[in-house]
Amino acid sequence: MRLSRYFLPVLKETPGDAVVVSHQLMLRAGMIRQTAAGIYAWLPLGLRVLKKIEAIVREEQDRAGAIEVLMPTIQSAELWKNSGRYDAYGPEMLRIKDRHDREMLFSPTAEELFTTIFANGARSYRDLPKNIYQIQWKFRDEVRPRFGVLRGREFLMKDAYSFDLDFDAARHSYNRMFVAYLRTFQRMGLHAIPMRADTGPIGGDLSHEFIVLAPTGESDVFYHRNWESARDLTVDADDAHALAGFVDGLNADYAATDEKRDEAAEAAAGDAILQSKGIEVGQVFYFGDKYTKAMGVTVQGADGQAVTPLMGSYGIGVSRLIGAIIEASHDKDGIVWPEAVAPYKVALINLRADDTACREAADALYGQLEAAGVEVLYDDRDERGGTKFATADLIGVPWQLIVGPKGVAAGTVELKRRGGDREDVSVDAAMARLTG
Amino acid sequence: MRLSRYFLPVLKETPGDAVVVSHQLMLRAGMIRQTAAGIYAWLPLGLRVLKKIEAIVREEQDRAGAIEVLMPTIQSAELWKNSGRYDAYGPEMLRIKDRHDREMLFSPTAEELFTTIFANGARSYRDLPKNIYQIQWKFRDEVRPRFGVLRGREFLMKDAYSFDLDFDAARHSYNRMFVAYLRTFQRMGLHAIPMRADTGPIGGDLSHEFIVLAPTGESDVFYHRNWESARDLTVDADDAHALAGFVDGLNADYAATDEKRDEAAEAAAGDAILQSKGIEVGQVFYFGDKYTKAMGVTVQGADGQAVTPLMGSYGIGVSRLIGAIIEASHDKDGIVWPEAVAPYKVALINLRADDTACREAADALYGQLEAAGVEVLYDDRDERGGTKFATADLIGVPWQLIVGPKGVAAGTVELKRRGGDREDVSVDAAMARLTG
Repeated sequence: MRLSRYFLPVLKETPGDAVVVSHQLMLRAGMIRQTAAGIYAWLPLGLRVLKKIEAIVREEQDRAGAIEVLMPTIQSAELWKNSGRYDAYGPEMLRIKDRHDREMLFSPTAEELFTTIFANGARSYRDLPKNIYQIQWKFRDEVRPRFGVLRGREFLMKDAYSFDLDFDAARHSYNRMFVAYLRTFQRMGLHAIPMRADTGPIGGDLSHEFIVLAPTGESDVFYHRNWESARDLTVDADDAHALAGFVDGLNADYAATDEKRDEAAEAAAGDAILQSKGIEVGQVFYFGDKYTKAMGVTVQGADGQAVTPLMGSYGIGVSRLIGAIIEASHDKDGIVWPEAVAPYKVALINLRADDTACREAADALYGQLEAAGVEVLYDDRDERGGTKFATADLIGVPWQLIVGPKGVAAGTVELKRRGGDREDVSVDAAMARLTG
Repeated sequence: MRLSRYFLPVLKETPGDAVVVSHQLMLRAGMIRQTAAGIYAWLPLGLRVLKKIEAIVREEQDRAGAIEVLMPTIQSAELWKNSGRYDAYGPEMLRIKDRHDREMLFSPTAEELFTTIFANGARSYRDLPKNIYQIQWKFRDEVRPRFGVLRGREFLMKDAYSFDLDFDAARHSYNRMFVAYLRTFQRMGLHAIPMRADTGPIGGDLSHEFIVLAPTGESDVFYHRNWESARDLTVDADDAHALAGFVDGLNADYAATDEKRDEAAEAAAGDAILQSKGIEVGQVFYFGDKYTKAMGVTVQGADGQAVTPLMGSYGIGVSRLIGAIIEASHDKDGIVWPEAVAPYKVALINLRADDTACREAADALYGQLEAAGVEVLYDDRDERGGTKFATADLIGVPWQLIVGPKGVAAGTVELKRRGGDREDVSVDAAMARLTG
């Protein structure tokens, strides 16, 4: 993409209403604009990152055997009255009346709708296990939306719902998502710790939050220092016994949110217990027959008797993840994207857009990189080099490839990792590095 | 994908409330389920088609130089009061009050928000031309939602907004989208005719609807018989003069919706004028400074003076397109997908799931097709052959590859185009045909 044709409204000044660094940098880097309290427009650069994150989440859900669907954002209140949650949910639910005065709502989560869709399509024990997911915008009418996408009102969420015939199978589904979540966050360069957590309005008796440690986090968290190092996630998720052992092994190291602290466990671990702030990027729940029973959902068991399926649900805050990644990965000059979620791999900088030789050399490099399938943002604007470097640093692209008059004369370019030093290399060497 | 692990709730009976064939077939083929009046859940098969269509729309928008963003679904009423449309829009707008009693709405279109976002990021004539688009769910509270996704309330729409410095440039943007739309529909196997159309609540003085002819269409349309044949769309869209000549050439053949009929033009063309019903799948508008002027948006011109940008907007009904394609392409057994939008390319049918040799042969073919990157739905269920054929015909996958005991013994498989005849071929020949 040529920057002269792009839409990248970067800001020199930090907007005064943004108090956390991810919010500041997303505004400054032209990724988002607030359009109402806690509601954001995604500009081209922000949308690219959102799609990268969404793609990783989708790949790991698919790999775990979950099947993608898409539910509408607007739901009938009837559905929520059937489960008994309509009155219970409180003012975070955005309630709506349509032109015929029917009660509707903007989905804050979708246990009821997925249960209904499942019941409509599954009749027999042979249709289970089933795990169905969507990546869709949700709305929660937060009383004080803040911190940009970390606590917005309209946000993108992956939500999955598993249906199983008995507790062991349901626990296997839970464990499968548990590991899929750890893989998902690891692929994004995030170190997320699974912590015993409160179940809140979803309900049930087992839940883990996945927490990224950050001083700006809203949650107080407590964990064993073993969690400071990354874990090897190699396990055969199809082997229920091996997977259960693996997950139990992970959870043997204490980690809990404020609501689920266990004083005895903390005392036993002594000064191995650390305290920090964290950002929740995902949460998994097991709640058994809470919804299927309330909504009268059964399938025919192998013995012909009706069985009430047991459920879990599994959420990832897709848009929130962007904020969490920036909180974990930035410096004084801007964002430092992990390569897997970077909006572009390379910022190609022409230092002298008014110089024919420079322009031709940069155009040629741009063509070569595009032809090789490298995602490149080409700063072809008629601006000073300093402005271009500042923009490239701010938006955090992993590589900078710099074309200037001296290099063009010598047949070289400058190559630089975000935050590293510039290095004079031949054009061929630069291409080999960027396409390898 | 193995059908035994998929979620494909096909229906044998046609639901009584579905009156048009696309609605009937989308329900029967397990693509969608209604969750409230005019609101649908997209099941796995439907979502796959939706994504194929979305991808084609996106590619053609990108190719035409438009830049993708994503706006929130929930907007502030303030924005619409600024343009004067809040009161004018009528009961199709879903109006909402949040917990602080602020007036919000679910976006039915987004001229105001795109104008605001543009104004926030563009300062100078050098930032123009700009065409910004999104593919996002919209809500229009239809008084009588009907015909499935053809007239739903929550629907997926691509909407683009162009900003130009003068009329010639704005007209060039309009023409560029005009041709991009024809290419988009052509790639989906649809013959869409551009017709002079009324501008409705968007406003402006120039508009075309893109209409797919279908007896179940809601629009009465009138067009020259020259429109019955497909057009060659080869033109250099960067050459404003050539493009204008090309578009004028197309429009020389009369075509108009009911509201824009020209009796003199029809009389002159005599019996070359045909009348039909049609489904609108896209609409383009030129409305000059209607929104930029009302909202006080200017950029600095080359001479330092403020210039009010001229706008157009351009919509495609992404979810509606699925209904239009099915209306245009089905037979008594089910859907007949054009290959570009088919959910899978191949239905692999094992006639004898209980036979070891058949299962091994079918498993091997499945592995080979997946490895070759062919999108294949593998019917590995323990069902009768007749049921499997009926399902494959209903969901309209372009190819069927059939594995049975006789063929396995002889080293052959049966290959069949949807609606064609079965043909005995060697496994190698089948693979060559499907991967070629």
